[in-house]
Amino acid sequence: MRKSDVVILGGTMGISAGMSCRNHYPDKTIAMIRKEVTVQVPCGIPYLFGTVATPEKNIIPDRILESNQIELIQDDAIDVDRSKKVVLLASGETVGYEKLVFATGSLPLVPPIHGVDKKGVFPVQKDLSYLWHLLYQMDKVENVVIIGGGFIGVEFADECRKNRDINITVVEMLPHCLQVSMDEEFCEEAESALAETGVKIITNERVVSILGNEKVTGVELASGKKINADMVILGLGAVPNTSLAGKAGLELGFRNAVRVDRHMRTVTDMDVFACGDCAEKFSFFDGRPSGIMLASVGSSEARIVGANLFSPTCYNIGTVGVFSTLINERAFAAAGITERYAKEAGCETVIGTETSTDTHPAGMPGSSVVKLKLIFAKDTGVLLGGGLSGGKSVGEMINVVSACIQHRMTAHDIIMFQMGTHPALTPSPIMYPLVNAACKCIGGFKN
Amino acid sequence: MRKSDVVILGGTMGISAGMSCRNHYPDKTIAMIRKEVTVQVPCGIPYLFGTVATPEKNIIPDRILESNQIELIQDDAIDVDRSKKVVLLASGETVGYEKLVFATGSLPLVPPIHGVDKKGVFPVQKDLSYLWHLLYQMDKVENVVIIGGGFIGVEFADECRKNRDINITVVEMLPHCLQVSMDEEFCEEAESALAETGVKIITNERVVSILGNEKVTGVELASGKKINADMVILGLGAVPNTSLAGKAGLELGFRNAVRVDRHMRTVTDMDVFACGDCAEKFSFFDGRPSGIMLASVGSSEARIVGANLFSPTCYNIGTVGVFSTLINERAFAAAGITERYAKEAGCETVIGTETSTDTHPAGMPGSSVVKLKLIFAKDTGVLLGGGLSGGKSVGEMINVVSACIQHRMTAHDIIMFQMGTHPALTPSPIMYPLVNAACKCIGGFKN
Repeated sequence: MRKSDVVILGGTMGISAGMSCRNHYPDKTIAMIRKEVTVQVPCGIPYLFGTVATPEKNIIPDRILESNQIELIQDDAIDVDRSKKVVLLASGETVGYEKLVFATGSLPLVPPIHGVDKKGVFPVQKDLSYLWHLLYQMDKVENVVIIGGGFIGVEFADECRKNRDINITVVEMLPHCLQVSMDEEFCEEAESALAETGVKIITNERVVSILGNEKVTGVELASGKKINADMVILGLGAVPNTSLAGKAGLELGFRNAVRVDRHMRTVTDMDVFACGDCAEKFSFFDGRPSGIMLASVGSSEARIVGANLFSPTCYNIGTVGVFSTLINERAFAAAGITERYAKEAGCETVIGTETSTDTHPAGMPGSSVVKLKLIFAKDTGVLLGGGLSGGKSVGEMINVVSACIQHRMTAHDIIMFQMGTHPALTPSPIMYPLVNAACKCIGGFKN
Repeated sequence: MRKSDVVILGGTMGISAGMSCRNHYPDKTIAMIRKEVTVQVPCGIPYLFGTVATPEKNIIPDRILESNQIELIQDDAIDVDRSKKVVLLASGETVGYEKLVFATGSLPLVPPIHGVDKKGVFPVQKDLSYLWHLLYQMDKVENVVIIGGGFIGVEFADECRKNRDINITVVEMLPHCLQVSMDEEFCEEAESALAETGVKIITNERVVSILGNEKVTGVELASGKKINADMVILGLGAVPNTSLAGKAGLELGFRNAVRVDRHMRTVTDMDVFACGDCAEKFSFFDGRPSGIMLASVGSSEARIVGANLFSPTCYNIGTVGVFSTLINERAFAAAGITERYAKEAGCETVIGTETSTDTHPAGMPGSSVVKLKLIFAKDTGVLLGGGLSGGKSVGEMINVVSACIQHRMTAHDIIMFQMGTHPALTPSPIMYPLVNAACKCIGGFKN
């Protein structure tokens, strides 16, 4: 029987877990079991339909495994015998482990809509040949309906319209696209940016039926309206891929994710860990179960798993939730909780906003207007969340906001933040949105 | 006699101090005394010789003063009577104050080199007509020598060569350009980037004499070598502009900067504050006097002043030092202390590096290679500094590093950092340089 000190199930966040394990435990043997020949960059999938143009360019290179001495076992793990500490493979082989890591990710959510199994309806799967098939079909259609206006939905819409003369409609059941992650003013700006490209957005509406015989011809909305479609993409998010974990007797929790403690150890078995989309998550803010699935959260959890395998010292502070996207060349980002969520949770807030340019002076070429909103707790002054729109620097600027949130910084702390600034790279030091937005809140706090 | 609750001397960081005061003390009257009709964005000055093309586009708009109800008194403050709490103006008028802020900035350092007063030798002053004159002259010359290879020197070199067919030589007395702020490998990369534009760089060399009769014709180096020049730019840094502060009897400290406490209050007078280049600085790391002069540091100090004027609660943690620049379209940045400085200070370090792309997959258009180096204390694992090179996102990425430094985060903390990632905006979550470089250091610490 093959044996490895550490066995990792799953090839995406499994890489992060393996790299972290290699750094913490240089002498341990590590094996990764994955079914796929190649692994897609998950967040890159919408982009291979436009900007990147081919799934082959969206593959995570296996040399990362080699350089970290992670043995790749290309096979399908079909069962785990935890009493014997072995993984059973589809090939009939078994692999023994001392520590086992579930990084089995998620599967696209397929809603129970009538007709969802028709030809031409595509959940977003991460498989290479599936993606080639989807790309091949997309170059042949005229009318695409995307169900779901979250990040996957709007990114697919923005990418699919590139270099294609097709009609794209996004159907979102909430009042706004991206509403789960961003406050209304940013959602509206994002919707406008997307609408400018010709994409049609229908919100407050639900697809109740997918029309057609064998093949899709359209969708029917709750209002009775029908939209022609020769392709339907399901951008409704994902569900934890935990059938193997369940079969192995691991306790599943919120949304059927594997229940883990703050060390990312399964609550069921001290020698089994889980990370990424398959693992249960808790909010950084209140410790409640969180449904946020993000590669960045997964990779953070994976690093914690790697560190904790043989000596659990890293504590998971919970999911902050840091998002960014690019729609029609304008970047949108959010970290932590929104003003809307804070209200729903009964938390009184103080809001600070600032609008600036992302270079200084504003006359620098390629300058974009950047808008920042900060959400502070009224009682304590602690930063709870931030929203951003602007140019590409927003992608890292939201990480500055995230760092402040993770340190539970107050508005008073943020005023003194020392940032580097440069005419071509950042807003002016006098107008740096983060500190200015915080400064404007002073006087609004209870204490 | 005119009177204002708060009187600010100086029009650049004075804006930040005024804005912060307005936020903290909505009911106070604020007046700013400045000699200049308009104020230049200080960090933008090199860019008006290339990218921005005119000093008129590099002006800080006075509407910021209006929107913060800061009265502008355009006059020259020539003396302060602290016993009567009045500022005397060149016009003969006096302005009374309750709290006074020195934000008088700095003046370019003019070294005692023979011939430095010749026509064609230009220290970098911030005055509008002076800059117009320099721009006018620059379009008429063939050979420019820039003395000093710090940020001002290399930025001038990179900008002046744009749209001009001139020979530019930078002379730096240290072994590398930018060496005070960055470690050798980044200095070398920056020098290569600059050299690719045709700029000639001479390091380990000193200008001993400026040649010519009335007008400059060249420079002579310590080695005896001579370089033709019809223009010499002095990029040697700046000295605190504190003659008025000295005249007013305020104690001056390191490099003649105004001595202040951690509340940015002058040690001499409880009603007088100072911030920006004219104020004495202390290192965040060891509390020793610091010679770092940065608009971003100045604006942080100014915000502290604004907050503390009538109730000192904000504490200056000291100067972290966060730099960024763009040379030949490649960005370079640094925060905190360098490996070289740590060595000189006798501090044992652990170094972590990571090289990634700033988008993912790497095939995204406009992708740049980003290189990060982190410097940790070997004893404690605390992050002391970071260096970066890459695309434009480096400008904000260094601020993520800065946030980690300011929170004295350890490598263990950074491993768990939750950042947002996006294909078009950031490195991949699996390869995010900050966390990966930290992860690689694990095992290198004493504790």
